Amino acid sequence: MAVKNAFYAQSGGVTAVINASACGVLQTARKYPDRIGKVYAGRNGIIGALREELIDTSLETDETIAALRYTPGGAFGSCRHKLKNFDENKREYERLIEVFRAHDIGYFFYNGGGDSQDTAYKISQLSERLGYPITAIGIPKTVDNDLPFTDNCPGFGSVAKYVATSTLEASLDIESMCESSTKVFILEVMGRHAGWIAASAGLAGKGHDQAPHIILFPEIAFDREAFLARVDHCVKEYGYCVVVASEGAQYEDGHFIADAGGRDAFGHTQLGGVAPVLANMVKQALGYKFHWAVSDYLQRAARHIASETDVRQAYAVGEAAVEFAMNGKNAVMPIIRREQNSPYRWSIGEVPLGEVANQEKKMPIHYIRDDGFGITADCREYLLPLIAGEDYPPFENGLPKVARPANKLVPKKLKATFEL
Amino acid sequence: MAVKNAFYAQSGGVTAVINASACGVLQTARKYPDRIGKVYAGRNGIIGALREELIDTSLETDETIAALRYTPGGAFGSCRHKLKNFDENKREYERLIEVFRAHDIGYFFYNGGGDSQDTAYKISQLSERLGYPITAIGIPKTVDNDLPFTDNCPGFGSVAKYVATSTLEASLDIESMCESSTKVFILEVMGRHAGWIAASAGLAGKGHDQAPHIILFPEIAFDREAFLARVDHCVKEYGYCVVVASEGAQYEDGHFIADAGGRDAFGHTQLGGVAPVLANMVKQALGYKFHWAVSDYLQRAARHIASETDVRQAYAVGEAAVEFAMNGKNAVMPIIRREQNSPYRWSIGEVPLGEVANQEKKMPIHYIRDDGFGITADCREYLLPLIAGEDYPPFENGLPKVARPANKLVPKKLKATFEL
Repeated sequence: MAVKNAFYAQSGGVTAVINASACGVLQTARKYPDRIGKVYAGRNGIIGALREELIDTSLETDETIAALRYTPGGAFGSCRHKLKNFDENKREYERLIEVFRAHDIGYFFYNGGGDSQDTAYKISQLSERLGYPITAIGIPKTVDNDLPFTDNCPGFGSVAKYVATSTLEASLDIESMCESSTKVFILEVMGRHAGWIAASAGLAGKGHDQAPHIILFPEIAFDREAFLARVDHCVKEYGYCVVVASEGAQYEDGHFIADAGGRDAFGHTQLGGVAPVLANMVKQALGYKFHWAVSDYLQRAARHIASETDVRQAYAVGEAAVEFAMNGKNAVMPIIRREQNSPYRWSIGEVPLGEVANQEKKMPIHYIRDDGFGITADCREYLLPLIAGEDYPPFENGLPKVARPANKLVPKKLKATFEL
Repeated sequence: MAVKNAFYAQSGGVTAVINASACGVLQTARKYPDRIGKVYAGRNGIIGALREELIDTSLETDETIAALRYTPGGAFGSCRHKLKNFDENKREYERLIEVFRAHDIGYFFYNGGGDSQDTAYKISQLSERLGYPITAIGIPKTVDNDLPFTDNCPGFGSVAKYVATSTLEASLDIESMCESSTKVFILEVMGRHAGWIAASAGLAGKGHDQAPHIILFPEIAFDREAFLARVDHCVKEYGYCVVVASEGAQYEDGHFIADAGGRDAFGHTQLGGVAPVLANMVKQALGYKFHWAVSDYLQRAARHIASETDVRQAYAVGEAAVEFAMNGKNAVMPIIRREQNSPYRWSIGEVPLGEVANQEKKMPIHYIRDDGFGITADCREYLLPLIAGEDYPPFENGLPKVARPANKLVPKKLKATFEL
């Protein structure tokens, strides 16, 4: 078989372990020098392909590639750029083919969430549509854990471990001080329209009387009175109340809680998430002393507290993507299959890209406690293996070591530039 | 010598390692059964003494005591309660003596910041003032790192490690995405009137061109125009800008930046810290896409990323406090002395409580870069040893293990109760 170059790119919000997937792709590709020539990484995702900004990963040392496994962020740059439908923006697809042809690219590996799998699917259709033969494989990634078919999404387990650990730690802090200081603590977490990340905080405690006492899921309509009553009950009964709120928590009518922050002196919508809004609500209705935290990017970048399971799975889907391509598969995405719960066993499966694109996996309603404020035993059973094990990065001078790839661009071959 | 019981209490905001100091106190006290009878821990700090709510730590197993070393929060409860001057509230001092006498307490160990050392000092005067002989030793603790004499304060090194690590990790995230997404990220950190914690973020990068690009210290008057100019420069020059802001950052006239958040629809002062206010400022003046995080209690509770140096020192000051008492010392506080920078060597010294109380150590101005937005080489040299080494807690089921002391109260001996 002819040697072809490969294109790999990272897409969408990065995670603590997306570079572990990159590591899996690159290390595996290096095992097939008779099939895969160079692996070019898109500088800033698919934008790099459109602009012909291709990072030559063959110039990176084995050590740098290995260090990707423990480096958070997206080592080659990521992007938020969704390819339109073929008929809507044929120009983009034609450009991609020009670039791929110019650099003899025969393999396309795209590492991202739902939108990115849609992009990978569209690329896989290029053979048929534009007569350019290419093998396109998606690689799953998203902290939101909302891709269908796969047991979970690489990136999620590490955020879950960070959120559960942080909730446990902060809860001990508040418990210590509640007699004469803060009584209500609110932690805002990510997850968009899915409550998976918020749910993971529930692993920090068991039962109604343990922190977190309240989890606010996007899947459950926010009821101000019920929320305040539960806060008040917890403070009176347990001395304090720990609330973990999903950024996507919303009222019955679909308004986000975070939207209720009012407007500033200039009439602009007040910035800020759900945590300060809830804190304000508690203060005004109940008068309790409060604190709030918004961990934002810290949670999805926290490689130092990554889940070992997650790191292994992130690596495995990168590795599998290359193996799939080597086995002649096309237009598929590796998925994680849960074989068994306890002890947890998993394997790698596959799903056609056409089926996975643009679908969102919500939390099953039986994962949420009847009162809407916590997780069930089923949910706990699902989540626990995903945060299992630690995979500490090496440290140097007190800080995590990280890969610093040279990211040298391949000389351009095309005369035309491309405006996004 | 007669056997006397000891009183130990935790005071003020808790830290990731204040229980390591408790561990040092309790394990060391157990070595002197012929001198120290039981160690009673105040339930919720000094409040426990006033209310005669004394936790009998002799009922805790050696395993539980050992586990305190890796448990964040305050295992016996802490408080924000400052004893007034003797003449202003003699009633409190008389009550303390009643309780101490009833429980045959001859040693007083008080673990806290500046206010708490003031309390320890007042207790040490009880012998003279009220004729009750007691040995009072302070044990330093504060994430704000603002106690005088000691090289640093137990608790600070671990927050510094958390903040430096989180800043490094989040910066990689933002760098990955800045081409088509967030360009400005703002992390708010603690520290009250001292910029030590904010300074520690500076360890994540070196030089003007590396993240964090801007640190806002309470010690440097906030200049809106200079700040916005620097943000704009960084975005244009480096593609993104990472800002770490101390909660105590303020304008020239002493107004906190956080106060500028305006009022909500009800006319209440808008809650929320400096991060969302700065984000709003950037948005309105420059229009860049932003994200912000407020780590709040997460930073001071983050035992999972504690500094090994900090844990050792926190343990050592607890241990030293008991050894001091056994050596007949009184009204002193153990301090950390820096013997050498590289390799870092330290020892335990002491300072009279009367000198340490109610003083605040500010950051030396030569630790802050001339432009006011970063740290100097001197500051780096000071900070680096304090975040050195990792001291991971054991994990179980994916989460840190923590001590769960039984915290059984000693039966009360006094008839009178006490209203705070």
